[in-house]
Amino acid sequence: MRLDAGAARRLFAGTAVARLATVTPAGHPHIVPVTFVLDSRPGQGDWVYTAVDHKPKSTTRLQRLRNIQAQPRVALLADHYADDWTQLWWVRADGDAAVLGAADVADVADQAAGAAGPLRLLAARYPQYAARPPAGPVIAVRVDRWTGWAAAGG
Amino acid sequence: MRLDAGAARRLFAGTAVARLATVTPAGHPHIVPVTFVLDSRPGQGDWVYTAVDHKPKSTTRLQRLRNIQAQPRVALLADHYADDWTQLWWVRADGDAAVLGAADVADVADQAAGAAGPLRLLAARYPQYAARPPAGPVIAVRVDRWTGWAAAGG
Repeated sequence: MRLDAGAARRLFAGTAVARLATVTPAGHPHIVPVTFVLDSRPGQGDWVYTAVDHKPKSTTRLQRLRNIQAQPRVALLADHYADDWTQLWWVRADGDAAVLGAADVADVADQAAGAAGPLRLLAARYPQYAARPPAGPVIAVRVDRWTGWAAAGG
Repeated sequence: MRLDAGAARRLFAGTAVARLATVTPAGHPHIVPVTFVLDSRPGQGDWVYTAVDHKPKSTTRLQRLRNIQAQPRVALLADHYADDWTQLWWVRADGDAAVLGAADVADVADQAAGAAGPLRLLAARYPQYAARPPAGPVIAVRVDRWTGWAAAGG
């Protein structure tokens, strides 16, 4: 029932939404849903990118960004629910995050995402972003642990 | 686009799965999907109950329970994703959690959940629990803040 890293990565990559958990400077948990793209390439490790976009926010000075600046450790969760509980699964990705501004995004594009870059990878995954690209900033998570479960063994 | 507490509570109550974010003793975020029931009654406040059940776990000494014992502050998230981004919404419930053993569950049943009790409320909500009741322990969260957004204004 435990998933290996490869199976966990594949399930995670195939979902449209994940939840990003961070820790506030006061040490409390914070959680938001995020669109994301997983960039896994040999020798580069697993990177998850999520962008601050035009979807509704309470402020441009987002809590998640403040949190990551104080505590870079984050967790991302994708899950599948069904009334048939033999179909349940979930995958968690743990890693260290960095908040990238416009200049950093270009750097990361060179270092980790190749010519495509985080924003282009996101736009390629979500047609909504092609019409209205996210302005950023981008959160880049270097995943160092995959944990997953499937009721039916994956 | 921001939801008031009443609208947030209603959307949250209507979803079958939420994600529970806690903080580890090392100060890192942790996140798991949970089934839950919301018990909101006048004068009693808003309580979310989630039980450790027979769904797959890596250990009976669960990380989420250790985390809550060290840091009771938790966050729960329900969200709705659709390719039509005008349909997106999410609700976050922040509160303080306690881990209840069998004796405590009976106490809480008296104090907060009336004659029904957390485990009966969960069994009433999920037919799967009627066939195989969760053994517990139960996590009880006293929600003190509802935050929510809907792209279409709820």
